[in-house]
Amino acid sequence: MRTLWASVLFALTLIFAPAALAQDKPNIVLIFLDNFGWGEPGFNGGGIIRGAATPRIDQLAAEGLRLTNFNVEVQCTPSRSALMTGRYAIRSGNGTVPLGEGIYGLVQWEVTMAEMLADAGYATGMFGKWHLGRTEGRFPTDQGFDEWYGVPNSTDESVYSSLPEFVDSGLSETFVMDGKKGSMPESVRPYRLDYRPLIDRDLTDRAISFMKREAEADQPFFVYLPYTATHFPTMPHPDFMGKSGNGPWGDLLMQIDSYVGELLDTLDELGIADDTIVIFTADNGPEALSEGETSLTVETAIHGSAGPWRSTLFTGYEGALRVPFAIRWPGKIDAGGESDEIVHAMDLFPTLAGIAGGIVPDDRVIDGIDVSAFLLGEEAESGRDGFIVYMGNDIFGVKWQDWKLHFKEQTGWNGELREYTMPRLYNLMNDPQERDNVLFPHTWVPKAALPQLEEHVASLKEYPPIPTGAPDPYEPQAQE
Amino acid sequence: MRTLWASVLFALTLIFAPAALAQDKPNIVLIFLDNFGWGEPGFNGGGIIRGAATPRIDQLAAEGLRLTNFNVEVQCTPSRSALMTGRYAIRSGNGTVPLGEGIYGLVQWEVTMAEMLADAGYATGMFGKWHLGRTEGRFPTDQGFDEWYGVPNSTDESVYSSLPEFVDSGLSETFVMDGKKGSMPESVRPYRLDYRPLIDRDLTDRAISFMKREAEADQPFFVYLPYTATHFPTMPHPDFMGKSGNGPWGDLLMQIDSYVGELLDTLDELGIADDTIVIFTADNGPEALSEGETSLTVETAIHGSAGPWRSTLFTGYEGALRVPFAIRWPGKIDAGGESDEIVHAMDLFPTLAGIAGGIVPDDRVIDGIDVSAFLLGEEAESGRDGFIVYMGNDIFGVKWQDWKLHFKEQTGWNGELREYTMPRLYNLMNDPQERDNVLFPHTWVPKAALPQLEEHVASLKEYPPIPTGAPDPYEPQAQE
Repeated sequence: MRTLWASVLFALTLIFAPAALAQDKPNIVLIFLDNFGWGEPGFNGGGIIRGAATPRIDQLAAEGLRLTNFNVEVQCTPSRSALMTGRYAIRSGNGTVPLGEGIYGLVQWEVTMAEMLADAGYATGMFGKWHLGRTEGRFPTDQGFDEWYGVPNSTDESVYSSLPEFVDSGLSETFVMDGKKGSMPESVRPYRLDYRPLIDRDLTDRAISFMKREAEADQPFFVYLPYTATHFPTMPHPDFMGKSGNGPWGDLLMQIDSYVGELLDTLDELGIADDTIVIFTADNGPEALSEGETSLTVETAIHGSAGPWRSTLFTGYEGALRVPFAIRWPGKIDAGGESDEIVHAMDLFPTLAGIAGGIVPDDRVIDGIDVSAFLLGEEAESGRDGFIVYMGNDIFGVKWQDWKLHFKEQTGWNGELREYTMPRLYNLMNDPQERDNVLFPHTWVPKAALPQLEEHVASLKEYPPIPTGAPDPYEPQAQE
Repeated sequence: MRTLWASVLFALTLIFAPAALAQDKPNIVLIFLDNFGWGEPGFNGGGIIRGAATPRIDQLAAEGLRLTNFNVEVQCTPSRSALMTGRYAIRSGNGTVPLGEGIYGLVQWEVTMAEMLADAGYATGMFGKWHLGRTEGRFPTDQGFDEWYGVPNSTDESVYSSLPEFVDSGLSETFVMDGKKGSMPESVRPYRLDYRPLIDRDLTDRAISFMKREAEADQPFFVYLPYTATHFPTMPHPDFMGKSGNGPWGDLLMQIDSYVGELLDTLDELGIADDTIVIFTADNGPEALSEGETSLTVETAIHGSAGPWRSTLFTGYEGALRVPFAIRWPGKIDAGGESDEIVHAMDLFPTLAGIAGGIVPDDRVIDGIDVSAFLLGEEAESGRDGFIVYMGNDIFGVKWQDWKLHFKEQTGWNGELREYTMPRLYNLMNDPQERDNVLFPHTWVPKAALPQLEEHVASLKEYPPIPTGAPDPYEPQAQE
């Protein structure tokens, strides 16, 4: 009998081996909001005070781990560059949002999170905003995604497309694109205000279709969902317009929450919720008026909340750097957790590589660290003590533990730039609004905080950054 | 048989009648923190980012109703005056914190929440800070409390008691006092820095003893617990010093949470949790540095967070006005609720009167409204559309629904005073930092917001406020 059972078990092992292997690799759904401040979701004290409760997003956080000190770069393109590569955006030539018409984005030499996961056996789908290149060879489907539907750049472009001044300028309009790996994405429609309220609905539908298809094929998948709706102009989908009773922003919160709910429901329906990591986060802090700034527009589209943290996107303050973050992986990450340990968007590349069995390139500097042991509750600390705070290509400061040293400050996203001969030091726990310079008596803090900056600057010298706009094919410069 | 059973039931009814009557009146525990900003507790997105998790307070909120738009007056004495009387502090001559040595506080003619509840059959105990009179006839035990242990004034007084300049001034020192209704409270010890870290421990112990004694006597009770610890100077109890790893403020959060936990555990042990309303709130927004202000003190004791709201105590901004609020009454108030409906501290007097069967005086203006139907989930709206925003005796503005109209602003608690010839209008949901004046195009809002101000001003003319420092006995002026 024993021999018979052993044979049966062996046969079963053979039959179920592919499925077992597939289950070793959790699916990954990365929901990535645009200009969405720390203070927006209910799980960070937002929700109803911002215009609408976010029960599905809050529930996602309650079923997983909430990080209160998850950091990004302070602008859209740099943050997405760091997320995709695990490297400071400066290294990839993506220190700033591109404003001109020239070539920009990620050179093909870069290894993206999507390439890493594809190599590890994942089906990779992206639905949303890229902002890392809009020329041939630099679309998401050139950078590791099997398929992509979305916009190559950013959402302000939907505003000007119909302006006579723009039409007369002879500049090229932005299109919504649809692509598959191995061919040039197609331009399916102009990205104008008529489609602005509708696009995130389509992104959600396509993400759901993708998940269903891949789950049915028993294929581990990676869905990258960089939604557009929370970027200005604030235009909720007609399904949600007026529904919150608190204006368009409240309507948008309802919309996002509902779409996240649809994604989670899909995982439940497919029976793969336990095999899927869901991450909810954002690219940078909110749009909002800066100190001293007043809008006299009829309805300002620019309103967001960083919660207790100072200021907005495009500054070196916590309001730019800290974004909402929740990760759920049932059975692997304990429910109800919260931590104030520092983690950075750059860390997701090596962390997901560690979890998914992906390969982190060893021929280049990877600034991110694998924090999977921390996320899984095996270690109490993330292992990250701080990071360099960039504003564009400028080093504005250094964050170290609960402290931030500022060499420069900018009072708002279009504010005044201040440079200090003596840096200012803030304690983020005592003083979340970063107003009280406590360099004296805490002149010991720079001794602890500056070595990481010195190492970073030395590393930039040793491995020169890719110049912004470098054409493909790109090969790193030989070191001296 | 039926007759026999009926007789037994009738006998049981007689036997248990007093207990049944007692149960009709829920006990009330009102935890009232000092200078404790909206952003401090975990349930409002604070907790770990402020230095320590607050699991017991968060659990209290999760088991009851969290109000995100609970408002107070912007200073200590006015807020406590409004809480105790259900009237704007201006009416009672308590528009500002008393700084001089003269007579001040509540005249005996006022009917306090404690008097109302005592008349309704409650045992009334107060443990903590009063700040509504420190002369004979104006102590808590003169104003409806059966017993009181605490300080008559505020906690900054603990700082100067040992300063040679003060000792030489000939002014009277503040004492910790212990009193019973019907006699003059005794001064039990000077309120100095040696006792500063210890007092809230004693307040908790005495509150617990009181609850045990009254519960055992089957006597409905009202405990008013105006804790002191979160007022500067920040000095945690030795039991908590260094425990958070995040400095004294984090230690204090642990301390408060632990004390609240002890109170809740006591209710459980006594088996009266279901018969007890527990309210957790504060007198006004946090101490913190104002915009443009920098401290060069070695360790500033002044650090608090209003979360997303602008500024600090002693301003007309939401950071002063909105405080954390949670109310729990198991079986009567649904667990897990949250609401952004406007409620004001003044409303607690008529609300608790409504619940406890107390009498709201009809011979004076009561500005508070009974919001018990809203708290109990019988009505979706609180019934309060707004209120007048005072800064001291000055009308700074009017809050109406999601809007605030400012006639004056003060940029911080010791900031610059600005007066406008044309009021500024903010939308609190779009713009929690109150920076974007949207009076144009929203010139319709004053039409909706101003009638309550006009009524209020008319009412002040009809019923002149009690002059600050009016001696007892006080009788209201005859109306013309």
